[in-house]
Amino acid sequence: MGDSARLDRRRLLTAGLAAGGAALATRAIGAGSEPAITEIQDWNRYLGEGVQSRPYGIPSEFEANVVRRDVEWLTASTESSVNFTPLQDLDGIITPNGLCFERHHAGIAEIDPAQQRLMINGLVDTPLVFTMEDLKRFPRENRIYFLECAANSGMEWRGSQLNGCQYTHGMVHCVMYTGVPLKTILQEAGIKTNAKWVMPEGADSSAMTRSIPLDKALDDCLVAFKMNGEALRPEQGYPLRLVVPGWEGNMWVKWLRRLEVGDMPWHQREETAKYTDLLANGKARRFTWVMDVKSVITSPSPQAPVTHGKGPLVISGLAWSGKGRIKRVDVTTDGGRNWKTARIDGPSLPKALHRFYLDIDWDGSDLLLQSRAIDEAGFVQPTKNELRLARGENSIYHNNGIQTWHVKADGAVENVEVS
Amino acid sequence: MGDSARLDRRRLLTAGLAAGGAALATRAIGAGSEPAITEIQDWNRYLGEGVQSRPYGIPSEFEANVVRRDVEWLTASTESSVNFTPLQDLDGIITPNGLCFERHHAGIAEIDPAQQRLMINGLVDTPLVFTMEDLKRFPRENRIYFLECAANSGMEWRGSQLNGCQYTHGMVHCVMYTGVPLKTILQEAGIKTNAKWVMPEGADSSAMTRSIPLDKALDDCLVAFKMNGEALRPEQGYPLRLVVPGWEGNMWVKWLRRLEVGDMPWHQREETAKYTDLLANGKARRFTWVMDVKSVITSPSPQAPVTHGKGPLVISGLAWSGKGRIKRVDVTTDGGRNWKTARIDGPSLPKALHRFYLDIDWDGSDLLLQSRAIDEAGFVQPTKNELRLARGENSIYHNNGIQTWHVKADGAVENVEVS
Repeated sequence: MGDSARLDRRRLLTAGLAAGGAALATRAIGAGSEPAITEIQDWNRYLGEGVQSRPYGIPSEFEANVVRRDVEWLTASTESSVNFTPLQDLDGIITPNGLCFERHHAGIAEIDPAQQRLMINGLVDTPLVFTMEDLKRFPRENRIYFLECAANSGMEWRGSQLNGCQYTHGMVHCVMYTGVPLKTILQEAGIKTNAKWVMPEGADSSAMTRSIPLDKALDDCLVAFKMNGEALRPEQGYPLRLVVPGWEGNMWVKWLRRLEVGDMPWHQREETAKYTDLLANGKARRFTWVMDVKSVITSPSPQAPVTHGKGPLVISGLAWSGKGRIKRVDVTTDGGRNWKTARIDGPSLPKALHRFYLDIDWDGSDLLLQSRAIDEAGFVQPTKNELRLARGENSIYHNNGIQTWHVKADGAVENVEVS
Repeated sequence: MGDSARLDRRRLLTAGLAAGGAALATRAIGAGSEPAITEIQDWNRYLGEGVQSRPYGIPSEFEANVVRRDVEWLTASTESSVNFTPLQDLDGIITPNGLCFERHHAGIAEIDPAQQRLMINGLVDTPLVFTMEDLKRFPRENRIYFLECAANSGMEWRGSQLNGCQYTHGMVHCVMYTGVPLKTILQEAGIKTNAKWVMPEGADSSAMTRSIPLDKALDDCLVAFKMNGEALRPEQGYPLRLVVPGWEGNMWVKWLRRLEVGDMPWHQREETAKYTDLLANGKARRFTWVMDVKSVITSPSPQAPVTHGKGPLVISGLAWSGKGRIKRVDVTTDGGRNWKTARIDGPSLPKALHRFYLDIDWDGSDLLLQSRAIDEAGFVQPTKNELRLARGENSIYHNNGIQTWHVKADGAVENVEVS
């Protein structure tokens, strides 16, 4: 930015500081003089806890509100339910393992990795059963991918329902996976020439099963045993899950115990009664696997209001696409009349979250904030109304519409729609 | 790899499977037939725990041995001590926050972020004091960096001391930081023309202080408040730490409360009595900030022996350099007579950990495993003896020598040196 813009920003920030209140006034701050710190804080005076007070560390007690949250009225039981990643409290593109949203169909299977087996059967030359140790003898890959539930933002089809990006967009997370390419495992068994589909099956009592085209299985899928460096968390499929980059989370079968190879899809419950999109004409879209280009502003947002008044304001958000990298994110502060290109910061990796920022000087007036992502395949995130025109309002899944936050003069933020 | 090599590997793996023991024999595995699973595991029969059983997740109980560990005899108190990242259990390049090694000089300061202040004083136009909220109004960056303690591998100067890469190399971790460029903060205060150095000061009762050249401060340093997406962990400086990419960890001041700008270094205790390298001639190297190119094989290693017998074996390790990206890693299995280029997998980012693999067919004979990293600046990791010739054996810090693991026929691994 130019010198005058920077100076203007500095002036505004100084104004913000002055408005910061009594705490700052106890410190004498003047140009060219040494600030006098008169208080000695407790933490300067005493030794703190030593190493090994926690061999496995946990967050500060001051961060106790940064947790996954559920919506109690949404599901009849916690075993077949969902909770949400607190996107409003996070930054960057990595989700810490303890905050990755959960979606279970029969609760968290508690699997002893020594007893875990992965079977490959069906249209293969040699059916095989692998132990965890066997799997760790194949060449491995490390990839950062987002995982989004197909139902993320599902409650927004019929209008603004929930006040917070944790609830509207929190069924997404992004970690580094370590695993063996699914292709390697399938080729180890030998794929018969008439094979066209692969069905992963979970070892929980829902025995989650989905049909995956062989082309995708041989492309970039992983049989993964690590997330962010350590073993998968129990709620993410410990000790083994399928990674299906860019495709809906339901296909990333957790507690993976079997891979069947076949020549036709299996038409399982989770790809017929569920995870299909009922259109206005009574027909349903099926096999809508790819998660389309999408974005959301995570701060400010209803759970992350503006508390510092006018002046410099960091608008921060996430963008992602199942088709590859994000090419550009535009942000509007006036409900779509004017758009500015946001700054994407951090690694730009295919099928991974991207972090974007727009740094503005807020004049304190109402804002209608929206973000609009464009992926490298050229797809542009649609408005919610464009989606409704195309697909009606019966859908639950695949809502990638543009989200609007209304920032009010007092800094409070609400989930709204603009026509 | 070619078809014949792949077939050979498959043959070896099948042999490995057959040797896998009784558990596999309960399943009828034959070419072309469907395996019969006769057992139903408990986890198939019952609902597991539901969502929100843990709003902030933790690892599986089966991973209870994947923890930071200390060496009790190493330090007199836990408040001025260190523990070590369990590198042997990890993969990829991201360290989960709960497993990042700790190094404290006066224990973990417990800081209320609402009370936290960052002061900028000294040779600046306008001394300033920032709250955490103030800092979050400046434009942010997200970067993945390794952090290595200067004393990492320090006990190896006089020969192999500790049996495990957790202890020999575990004072390193790698996370994504989110923060404000230090340059932005300094420019906000206005840097006087005679300024040449910056001194960060910690708010713990050790009041950690180091001298950093202004050039580095204006280059890639960050004032960071997030790691892997969430707030810094208490033991990593919550709520604010300095990030000094590629430079020794002691300079990454935790619980950051003050930045003083000056025209000379301050010659603090931690850059005179400590964190200097006493040479054989009685002189000491000072201001040895950059962490040189380094690597280590994390598996197999003493705490990660080979348990599956001969056949396919994944050799996995980490490489890093304070000078930028890793260009190549070579691995030898015979103590340095023959070297093969390892496969670097995952993102290759400057001043970040790199994950490498060499996938071999182990014939079951003794191995002398070593890795040798080369960075993009052209520096080659030296042997320990080359280091000793150059610097004597009085040093504690900056040991980036090549590590040797002796893999025995029974799969056990020992820390050894080869002449």
